[in-house]
Amino acid sequence: MILTLHSSTTLHEVNALAKRLTGMGLTPLVQHQDGVFQIALIKGIDDKVNLSAFAQLPHVKAVVPMHENYKLSAREVKSDRTVIQVGDCAIGGGDCVVMAGPCAIEDEAQIFQIAKAVAQAGARFLRGGAFKPRTSPYSFQGLGEQGLQLMQAAAKEYGLLSVSEVVAEKDVNLVASYIDMLQIGARNMQNFPLLQAVGKTDRPVLLKRGPSATYQELLLAAEYIMSQGNEKVILCERGIRTFEPYSRNTLDLAAVPILHELSHLPVIVDPSHGTGLRHCIAPMSLAAKACGADGLIIEVHHTPDASVTDAKQAISCEAFEDLMGRLALLD
Amino acid sequence: MILTLHSSTTLHEVNALAKRLTGMGLTPLVQHQDGVFQIALIKGIDDKVNLSAFAQLPHVKAVVPMHENYKLSAREVKSDRTVIQVGDCAIGGGDCVVMAGPCAIEDEAQIFQIAKAVAQAGARFLRGGAFKPRTSPYSFQGLGEQGLQLMQAAAKEYGLLSVSEVVAEKDVNLVASYIDMLQIGARNMQNFPLLQAVGKTDRPVLLKRGPSATYQELLLAAEYIMSQGNEKVILCERGIRTFEPYSRNTLDLAAVPILHELSHLPVIVDPSHGTGLRHCIAPMSLAAKACGADGLIIEVHHTPDASVTDAKQAISCEAFEDLMGRLALLD
Amino acid sequence: MILTLHSSTTLHEVNALAKRLTGMGLTPLVQHQDGVFQIALIKGIDDKVNLSAFAQLPHVKAVVPMHENYKLSAREVKSDRTVIQVGDCAIGGGDCVVMAGPCAIEDEAQIFQIAKAVAQAGARFLRGGAFKPRTSPYSFQGLGEQGLQLMQAAAKEYGLLSVSEVVAEKDVNLVASYIDMLQIGARNMQNFPLLQAVGKTDRPVLLKRGPSATYQELLLAAEYIMSQGNEKVILCERGIRTFEPYSRNTLDLAAVPILHELSHLPVIVDPSHGTGLRHCIAPMSLAAKACGADGLIIEVHHTPDASVTDAKQAISCEAFEDLMGRLALLD
Amino acid sequence: MILTLHSSTTLHEVNALAKRLTGMGLTPLVQHQDGVFQIALIKGIDDKVNLSAFAQLPHVKAVVPMHENYKLSAREVKSDRTVIQVGDCAIGGGDCVVMAGPCAIEDEAQIFQIAKAVAQAGARFLRGGAFKPRTSPYSFQGLGEQGLQLMQAAAKEYGLLSVSEVVAEKDVNLVASYIDMLQIGARNMQNFPLLQAVGKTDRPVLLKRGPSATYQELLLAAEYIMSQGNEKVILCERGIRTFEPYSRNTLDLAAVPILHELSHLPVIVDPSHGTGLRHCIAPMSLAAKACGADGLIIEVHHTPDASVTDAKQAISCEAFEDLMGRLALLD
Repeated sequence: MILTLHSSTTLHEVNALAKRLTGMGLTPLVQHQDGVFQIALIKGIDDKVNLSAFAQLPHVKAVVPMHENYKLSAREVKSDRTVIQVGDCAIGGGDCVVMAGPCAIEDEAQIFQIAKAVAQAGARFLRGGAFKPRTSPYSFQGLGEQGLQLMQAAAKEYGLLSVSEVVAEKDVNLVASYIDMLQIGARNMQNFPLLQAVGKTDRPVLLKRGPSATYQELLLAAEYIMSQGNEKVILCERGIRTFEPYSRNTLDLAAVPILHELSHLPVIVDPSHGTGLRHCIAPMSLAAKACGADGLIIEVHHTPDASVTDAKQAISCEAFEDLMGRLALLD
Repeated sequence: MILTLHSSTTLHEVNALAKRLTGMGLTPLVQHQDGVFQIALIKGIDDKVNLSAFAQLPHVKAVVPMHENYKLSAREVKSDRTVIQVGDCAIGGGDCVVMAGPCAIEDEAQIFQIAKAVAQAGARFLRGGAFKPRTSPYSFQGLGEQGLQLMQAAAKEYGLLSVSEVVAEKDVNLVASYIDMLQIGARNMQNFPLLQAVGKTDRPVLLKRGPSATYQELLLAAEYIMSQGNEKVILCERGIRTFEPYSRNTLDLAAVPILHELSHLPVIVDPSHGTGLRHCIAPMSLAAKACGADGLIIEVHHTPDASVTDAKQAISCEAFEDLMGRLALLD
Repeated sequence: MILTLHSSTTLHEVNALAKRLTGMGLTPLVQHQDGVFQIALIKGIDDKVNLSAFAQLPHVKAVVPMHENYKLSAREVKSDRTVIQVGDCAIGGGDCVVMAGPCAIEDEAQIFQIAKAVAQAGARFLRGGAFKPRTSPYSFQGLGEQGLQLMQAAAKEYGLLSVSEVVAEKDVNLVASYIDMLQIGARNMQNFPLLQAVGKTDRPVLLKRGPSATYQELLLAAEYIMSQGNEKVILCERGIRTFEPYSRNTLDLAAVPILHELSHLPVIVDPSHGTGLRHCIAPMSLAAKACGADGLIIEVHHTPDASVTDAKQAISCEAFEDLMGRLALLD
Repeated sequence: MILTLHSSTTLHEVNALAKRLTGMGLTPLVQHQDGVFQIALIKGIDDKVNLSAFAQLPHVKAVVPMHENYKLSAREVKSDRTVIQVGDCAIGGGDCVVMAGPCAIEDEAQIFQIAKAVAQAGARFLRGGAFKPRTSPYSFQGLGEQGLQLMQAAAKEYGLLSVSEVVAEKDVNLVASYIDMLQIGARNMQNFPLLQAVGKTDRPVLLKRGPSATYQELLLAAEYIMSQGNEKVILCERGIRTFEPYSRNTLDLAAVPILHELSHLPVIVDPSHGTGLRHCIAPMSLAAKACGADGLIIEVHHTPDASVTDAKQAISCEAFEDLMGRLALLD
């Protein structure tokens, strides 16, 4: 149970209150967050305690049961890992599920060719963007519904499941009508109305960590979805923004064991956005699997030209096939 | 003009193309971004150049006129600073306009009392949240439309203009019907459908910098609004996320002269969220005005209790009045 | 008083110990840092308490008096601000003392010409590097002792005091023999033997914050110097490393009021390294003074060429003179 | 070859110079760093070019051969990976060499017991600190020479090699007389006199990345050592400082493939400091090996108490033995 105090409470008053709680046989831990005092009571409180009694104490603004903020996502409320079934594929069940495909769906030939290649190499999901959130309003914004149709057809043709991003509340049902799993992109991780909208569908949701989001904020974003009734949330580490200019982001692989400890939800890794560097994708995929990731989401392009430079984010179909062979050796 | 090359282009091919452009009397600058080569041509190109001819060159994927990405917000396209008129108040016209009020509208007595105090001290805008984007879905989400009504009434009573945040596309018209200036919060800085929605209104927009957004990303977010026809955008520095745990954010005041150099739009500063520390609000407000900020947005609470601790984000009505006096001395 | 517990202590044991302390009439606050539990006792403890008794409690590894870690620098141990007298100049006494000069001493003509200009404009200190810590071993490393001699002569000629960086323990006495104030550069902020060496001199020390150092780490670095007997330490904010690529560093001006609250030591600001952008130096200098900085350290070059670009770190002698006039208006 | 231009050079002049170079049959790439223009010439230049001719061009301040700054550490100057032989152990030769031991040497019984356990589990190096760089001057600073003696004896007894940190120039020879490999800690990564001092010994050097150092800065620190004649440098990723408060640092495992691409030097990983979280050490060790790390350096304590909490940095001897078994399975 956490008591949040009024912002006017002085340190003197906090300590007096802590003493009073101690006198009640409790063990108060005084905390401080965003300029407000909180008192956590982690011993001697169980479900039979009358929370409203604590709300009557001086300076107390709110009383929150201990895991109230993470009541759906926290490991403590569900000690078993959650397995999310999408079609015939189980995410979180011990396998490292691979999702692969292009950044954006460009045309029918492209998406079918890539779908065929990734399916043959062992991917279970086809990824690809039809609605692209672009930093500039003047950039290509994706094929929209036509892209979704192409993706659905290509996935079906090659026995793949599909995952694609939704960027607007109003498009949620449209994307859900074509695609097996909805993706919330990093920039929308705290777009709360959008989170609530996908939480009202029955589609599994791939929730990407924001580029400067803490683990706590990622889990609270998952709560926004789950609190609407949709508990099929898959967390995705995709690199955070740091001072290092060489790589596009810094891939935080410790997020895998940390999120597995904090939550029962599956955790996958995106080494493509996570590094932005082609030559890092295979080693980071292997590392992600080695530290327990439940899946990988990888950008694959079919580029006829072999003479590519190092600093690219997508790998070729051939490099993807090679990577799948190396991943299999880790089992 | 910027030529974006196909991602398969090799360094060898880039250099060959650069040489060919040089042979055409141009000065190619090869750049590299997110794994893709770009060639900037910044001399010898004017409006009469046939861009489509460049699109025919080998390896060229796209041709973008030089300031295309910042065609509305950039200083280069408008050398005068923009002055945004809201009612009888000019933002960007040389004065440092002060906006003040509570974080959230709680009830009628609260908002009227604070509105009275900040108006008497010289504020021009009443700020306050009716729709609150909360990190946790279980936190208080604001009074909604009732809050907007209270705010409109309080602002009117004391001759203030009003600014309040909108968090969902579907609420834009509702907020615009009660409030003089729409605020886009930091977490929604890259919520592109929301940016486009406020861009379709005629209300001025206060656009807050995301906690890990670069200057470039902030300006591109402004472009999203402006490209819909609404050019009344006010940029707001409100602190960025860094490694320092003591303050809630690190207030980046150099953003004021930098954004003024890059853009013609007004720039204001939020020292409340920018530091999260009560004792920093007055010095940071003075500093912001000294380095040229076009305005300040400050959280003011009426707390009956004088015995406050240091680590709070809002200042009292009395402290606000004192600060207004000190700001006046800087003129 | 802070009890640091053994790293093997379990949460269960911590809570038992906290309960026992409560039974002794104390108010234990359990904290957690770097994987180790601490119990802070902030009430009911005074100087007469026998600390060694607490060391006998189970799980207790160390007992540290409350302000032991900041026993020389903390505001609590000295409520008056420290004023450091260097020659006829008082730092911390209410004036904003300006230090100016080139990044590196290049030759006699250069340093004399700049010294003359900055003295005439009102600077009190001449700054300049004779020992340059360079990221690359192949870069110019400074003129060494010859540079110190030139600097001493130029400062004397124009009635200035001098400040210059020392980078090696073995050079401390050499630099101290020519220069009035020793500078510890940002990269050496946690070079503990060097800190101790300057702490054994009688020269005032300008201690620059490391590019990723917290306030706490900066103050503990000051303690290293002060614990050797030299309490004349001046703290310097010079920008921190963040994700923003546009500016060289992000100048954290809130460090001025925060360090003034935490410590009694003077705090100055370096807008040159803090932004790395010429056009930001004047606005950031004004902002630093407005928020209470005790001084400024500014890079000034005499460049004959007026056709300069924006993105430079040093300002011309003329721009410096203009800035000094604007700073005077803030008084 | 890179031409660094004078800081007064205007963009107009840069472009004119670039054009002139193009006219000479070269391909100039204009770059901008820390407020200074550089022109890179990466085609048409070979070792026979007279560099001094370029130094005569207008605006040119310095001429640097292309890989001059990384002339010893860069992959391009040595395409084979460097294998560093320490006693009978080869670092960089394909095996993942494990170094293990306590944070600090406390007493004889401790270091012998841990040395025995890690040797039996398969570690090749004993790690342990005798000179501890502590953030606070009032913290335990290590046993000094006595610690080195204990470590030497324990390593010898159990057939281990040894690695220990040196923090001061004056201690370099002392540490080198007892210990097989010298460690430069993260806080000293840019202590240039110390780097030069270890560069004058014949001991291999374990160079830890600073908490906010870029890859480039790490490699330039290696150059400081190598330029003194000692080319036996092992790079170590140990976590960087980011906004995330949950873990002590963010372990940047992409540093392994990136540093392997940029440099021929071996790269090892420190998951203990890199995460600061006990439960992350095994998964991050496995991940580091999976992405190609040449070694691991792990903190191991012999704690009699099994009831440990999660948030500790060191693992027990039993957990270490278990981890060694899991690492072996990756081969």
